[in-house]
Amino acid sequence: MAVNVCHFLPSQLSSFIPTCRLLALKSSKVRITCSAKPLSSHMEARGKFLEFPHASAPIRALMFDLVSTVENRLDSQLSPCTLPPDVQYFENQNGNAQASLQIRSGLNSSSIDFILGSWIHCELPTGALNITSLSAYLNSSTDAPNFLIELIQSSPTSLIFILDLPPRKDLVLDPDYLHTFYESTKLDTYRQMLEKVPEVRPYFSPTLYIRCAVSPTAIMVRIETESGESARTEEIVRSYVDPVAKELLEIWLNQCACAEREVEETDKAYLEKRDSVNRSKTIEIDLASSFPRLFGQEVADRVIGEIRKVYTGT
Amino acid sequence: MAVNVCHFLPSQLSSFIPTCRLLALKSSKVRITCSAKPLSSHMEARGKFLEFPHASAPIRALMFDLVSTVENRLDSQLSPCTLPPDVQYFENQNGNAQASLQIRSGLNSSSIDFILGSWIHCELPTGALNITSLSAYLNSSTDAPNFLIELIQSSPTSLIFILDLPPRKDLVLDPDYLHTFYESTKLDTYRQMLEKVPEVRPYFSPTLYIRCAVSPTAIMVRIETESGESARTEEIVRSYVDPVAKELLEIWLNQCACAEREVEETDKAYLEKRDSVNRSKTIEIDLASSFPRLFGQEVADRVIGEIRKVYTGT
Repeated sequence: MAVNVCHFLPSQLSSFIPTCRLLALKSSKVRITCSAKPLSSHMEARGKFLEFPHASAPIRALMFDLVSTVENRLDSQLSPCTLPPDVQYFENQNGNAQASLQIRSGLNSSSIDFILGSWIHCELPTGALNITSLSAYLNSSTDAPNFLIELIQSSPTSLIFILDLPPRKDLVLDPDYLHTFYESTKLDTYRQMLEKVPEVRPYFSPTLYIRCAVSPTAIMVRIETESGESARTEEIVRSYVDPVAKELLEIWLNQCACAEREVEETDKAYLEKRDSVNRSKTIEIDLASSFPRLFGQEVADRVIGEIRKVYTGT
Repeated sequence: MAVNVCHFLPSQLSSFIPTCRLLALKSSKVRITCSAKPLSSHMEARGKFLEFPHASAPIRALMFDLVSTVENRLDSQLSPCTLPPDVQYFENQNGNAQASLQIRSGLNSSSIDFILGSWIHCELPTGALNITSLSAYLNSSTDAPNFLIELIQSSPTSLIFILDLPPRKDLVLDPDYLHTFYESTKLDTYRQMLEKVPEVRPYFSPTLYIRCAVSPTAIMVRIETESGESARTEEIVRSYVDPVAKELLEIWLNQCACAEREVEETDKAYLEKRDSVNRSKTIEIDLASSFPRLFGQEVADRVIGEIRKVYTGT
């Protein structure tokens, strides 16, 4: 249930990554300390986020590389994360649910609206649930697609993997947009590549809105290995999930985030409307129902309030 | 290849079904005669269509029942098929590709734009390909979804089954529409039912536009049984495909075709635009590339010309 509800929980990103920190985090010997106390400073919260302390080694490495790539490429266009420290890291009263959230807004001159990263760790009666994600939202100076990756691990042998460039226009009404971003980029070849792995099955989100919001080339799969075969899950992440995610991020950076698109005034109004409905709906689906249950009403209200500010630009 | 190209080939429907004809066609002992000559009269062409002469017994029975249900329910709103006889039935020069097409337009007072039925039979080097389909398009007096069923059988043990109420609005921008037609109708339960059959796998159309045009609850599956197990394919059609298709048609008739919806003028213009792009794209994908190859340029031009008239209302 939590996997479904949390399914599209907002994703994780960060501010400036000093090279030494990068190297330290890249090393498999990095020591991870999990403090149960609220973090007091931005730097500490940011470090906590970048540790992905509960993710498996290959997911941690992948997420760290993705965050680094985005930050290296877009750094000059992004403000540092200004969320309050108790929104950058929070937990429930029992300490069995913890989460880290980083949001960096784009500067006025940028086509980036904001980049959002998160991880969530919950000890559920069924076992540990770990969600790591990264998403990037563009503003209405461009109509290019957004970026989204989410990994939902409900056991060492069960992983849901979502990777997409969610479209910002109605593809039925705009076949040229479909051609530009999805056909000519051959995005479906990546989905097909994953599909060939025997342990990989298509995943249908129980939330219909999520199925509508993704592109026709979205990778939405469930990776299930035999009981005790967590090494095989990790191997699939390293051999397939990791390279495909990196390829897609490159495509997004080159052809969406950093490519000029002319947007007419009427189109701008349309994009703003569609983005706005999409974001409100995303908050409702991802957070409004699951966060109070996971973190208590007070924490949920605080965190959702901050996310809503970013989503609605207020 | 042909399965892909023909994938959404327009579907089959008919005019008035006299009761005696219905009974004759429902009987499993009905004798099917396949004349290779062009049919000369509307009645003859209509009879030919209703025979579904190349479909397997359970598909023939299902298609006949669906056509009958639609006609019984909507008959007073539909004109008879006025396609020229050589468009209602046509074949290629060698006689190894044959097709039957029936289109009935809705009367001015109706919300039905037109209902289109077809079957196609081709002898390919890889074996016989049989496509049977039925689709129903509403006009802009309502924004309710259309109806579509398509069965593509490329061998006795391999069947692609597509069943959907394709939306006529952008579901990301209109969550209420999603709720009305897809969530509250619990359409996804039918997809889930099919998904549980061991021989059933999700089917991803190679044409991205088709993936965009269907709803989030669309049934798009491939049914593959073991070599020589054509009886199992037929059993799956009888036990799952048949009842699910009939349930969905009932939902479409009750909640889309026969339900009043208020559509404002601006919405009407939007629907007309979206329907128009969708239909042009459908002709391009389904017919423009495959029909000349299957039936020769002359036949293809004649048939596509007539279909285009209906699709564009000219």
